[in-house]
Amino acid sequence: MIPPLDGITVLDLTHVLAGPFSSLTLGDLGAKIIKIERPGLGDDTRAFPPFAQGESAYFAALNAGKLSLALDLKNEADRSVFERLLARADVILENFRPGTMERLGYGWADLHARFPRLIYGAVSGFGHTGPEAGKPAYDMVVQARGGIMSITGQENGPPVRVGASIGDIAAGMYLIQGILAALFGRERSGLGAKVDIAMLDAQLAIQEHAIAITGTTGTPPGRTGARHPTITPFSTYRAKDGFFVIAAGNDAMFAKLCEVLGLRLDDDPRFATNAARCENHAMLKRLLEAVTLDNTVTHWTATLDAAGLPTARVQDMAQVLRDPQLLARHMVLPVAARNDGPAFLAAGNPIKMSTLPEVSGRAAAPALDGDRATILAWLEMDH
Amino acid sequence: MIPPLDGITVLDLTHVLAGPFSSLTLGDLGAKIIKIERPGLGDDTRAFPPFAQGESAYFAALNAGKLSLALDLKNEADRSVFERLLARADVILENFRPGTMERLGYGWADLHARFPRLIYGAVSGFGHTGPEAGKPAYDMVVQARGGIMSITGQENGPPVRVGASIGDIAAGMYLIQGILAALFGRERSGLGAKVDIAMLDAQLAIQEHAIAITGTTGTPPGRTGARHPTITPFSTYRAKDGFFVIAAGNDAMFAKLCEVLGLRLDDDPRFATNAARCENHAMLKRLLEAVTLDNTVTHWTATLDAAGLPTARVQDMAQVLRDPQLLARHMVLPVAARNDGPAFLAAGNPIKMSTLPEVSGRAAAPALDGDRATILAWLEMDH
Repeated sequence: MIPPLDGITVLDLTHVLAGPFSSLTLGDLGAKIIKIERPGLGDDTRAFPPFAQGESAYFAALNAGKLSLALDLKNEADRSVFERLLARADVILENFRPGTMERLGYGWADLHARFPRLIYGAVSGFGHTGPEAGKPAYDMVVQARGGIMSITGQENGPPVRVGASIGDIAAGMYLIQGILAALFGRERSGLGAKVDIAMLDAQLAIQEHAIAITGTTGTPPGRTGARHPTITPFSTYRAKDGFFVIAAGNDAMFAKLCEVLGLRLDDDPRFATNAARCENHAMLKRLLEAVTLDNTVTHWTATLDAAGLPTARVQDMAQVLRDPQLLARHMVLPVAARNDGPAFLAAGNPIKMSTLPEVSGRAAAPALDGDRATILAWLEMDH
Repeated sequence: MIPPLDGITVLDLTHVLAGPFSSLTLGDLGAKIIKIERPGLGDDTRAFPPFAQGESAYFAALNAGKLSLALDLKNEADRSVFERLLARADVILENFRPGTMERLGYGWADLHARFPRLIYGAVSGFGHTGPEAGKPAYDMVVQARGGIMSITGQENGPPVRVGASIGDIAAGMYLIQGILAALFGRERSGLGAKVDIAMLDAQLAIQEHAIAITGTTGTPPGRTGARHPTITPFSTYRAKDGFFVIAAGNDAMFAKLCEVLGLRLDDDPRFATNAARCENHAMLKRLLEAVTLDNTVTHWTATLDAAGLPTARVQDMAQVLRDPQLLARHMVLPVAARNDGPAFLAAGNPIKMSTLPEVSGRAAAPALDGDRATILAWLEMDH
């Protein structure tokens, strides 16, 4: 079983989240990831909480299994090492402000002329083109500007942030796609390509429904809490000890739900059709919760499950990390600590492939410059 | 300029969101997408609102530029056409309940034996392995079960759904990655691979921070509205006419912010350090909004921008679709309507590549079975 990216080398100059998230996946697919960090401090996330035994759990999860080399790209000796690495690498990743690599002499045009097979991946807030190319951004900035906050939150409440850093993560996902497409394209053309991903672009790309509604009706959708805007009942509901999902997508499922809850609502004209249920959704929610509040989430999810109705507990992350289906899928993995202390926890690789063996854990994230000797020895080897 | 997936053919049996979202991107990268639909009704989303001129804007956006062929995979004549397509295809995608393809005689094992170069991509709620393989899921179900709803919403409010269908979209993104990795791997091995993506797995994979916190402290994070949990001020704030982001990540930026707002808070011991600001975040928000409510979002974003402080308006989707940076990046594209009526709007391709020309619009989504003659003629051609 040969992993798809076996033999591929990635020089990863990125830091914080979007870039390291990308190279983690490229590593999962079999690539060797050489993390180039600035001497002294390295990746900012080495100092991000939470910590265990002096090591950042956040850094550990995002950089598991990578190699680290500290280089100052303004120093001549370090530039010489870097250029030997460029001659060996298949991919270079960076998330500096646009223009930074050009000032160092390592912009796409220079690199492509010297290393025509090298693939160049950049991720930035607003991209390398357009009137605002070069401006910095944070996850919060692109979540706000990209529109997802305007449709996330309670119906009459303020906009809220998506709890995960979807501004960075979505951009990182597109960077992976661009790099993989460029690797495949190079097999035929023999040439590398530049991939230019903007966090703001990625925010728009993940919002199919809101765009269709706004483009067609002229009116942007608002916030609806946990409720589906056009199907009822399709939301979270309160049980005695927490929240769970009821997702009854059609009249037959609603009738089955009424039977399960012991409520005779399905031939009530206020609730007989989906249109009527949407119209009267607030009253229907009060009626359903009048019953569901009487028992536990475990009771209701088991009952709905037995009736063939889609359901789920609104799990907190402690519950998620014990979820039997996720454990069976190797989606919760220990990450070795560098000092042999207790392992960190991280998400596993969600790309399950017949050519990729499942792993039962991840190797430790590197110490800053911790792989200098290994990498320099590798540069001496024949290839 | 040759697109990276030029010459690649994808047989797409998927419907609704996660699968069609994947094949749309594969099409953007240059692949030919043949959408196989059930005769009569086709993809469910052909009937999803909103509509314009009798066509679903949702379907149009997700299926732009694809070809459609209606086949009943239980009918012998149709199976024969399907098998001729399999012999020509590089990739097959499906999002049936696990086991469905096996019952049709087209499971991975059968297909791999007959078409060893064919790549098989599946996306399902819980994946093809584990105790709950085979159970159906909806976006809402995996958002709840995967934990993202537990960290999205107001501090003292109920969990809310991410406004975009991130349960489907994240899975679709990983399906694209798996297919691209398998295409590259096939260049060396000569063999296809099976890619098995679960919506639930993908939900865990996009939540780096919550896992690190829970794994290290034992306590799952809760909801914090729009506020960053460990940096202050880093949230949305009210202006006279809407919400905008202030993201002052360190003491120097906070001092600059105080200067801009005319507030002398930066040497107040309650706010002098990030730790103190986090401790007193509610009071600080009231003090900042006492000033920001006096002027407009446009005023404050321009003022902060001029001061070099990251900021953004919380844009609704109508504002997003007019955003100059997104327009300059070709991220808002017209999709042709089949009847020559006014175009739909959709997100452009966020994967900007030097080997991929920018397009100024997308071709129409196909009529059901609308490309039968073209596809049958293509099957007759030499290859």
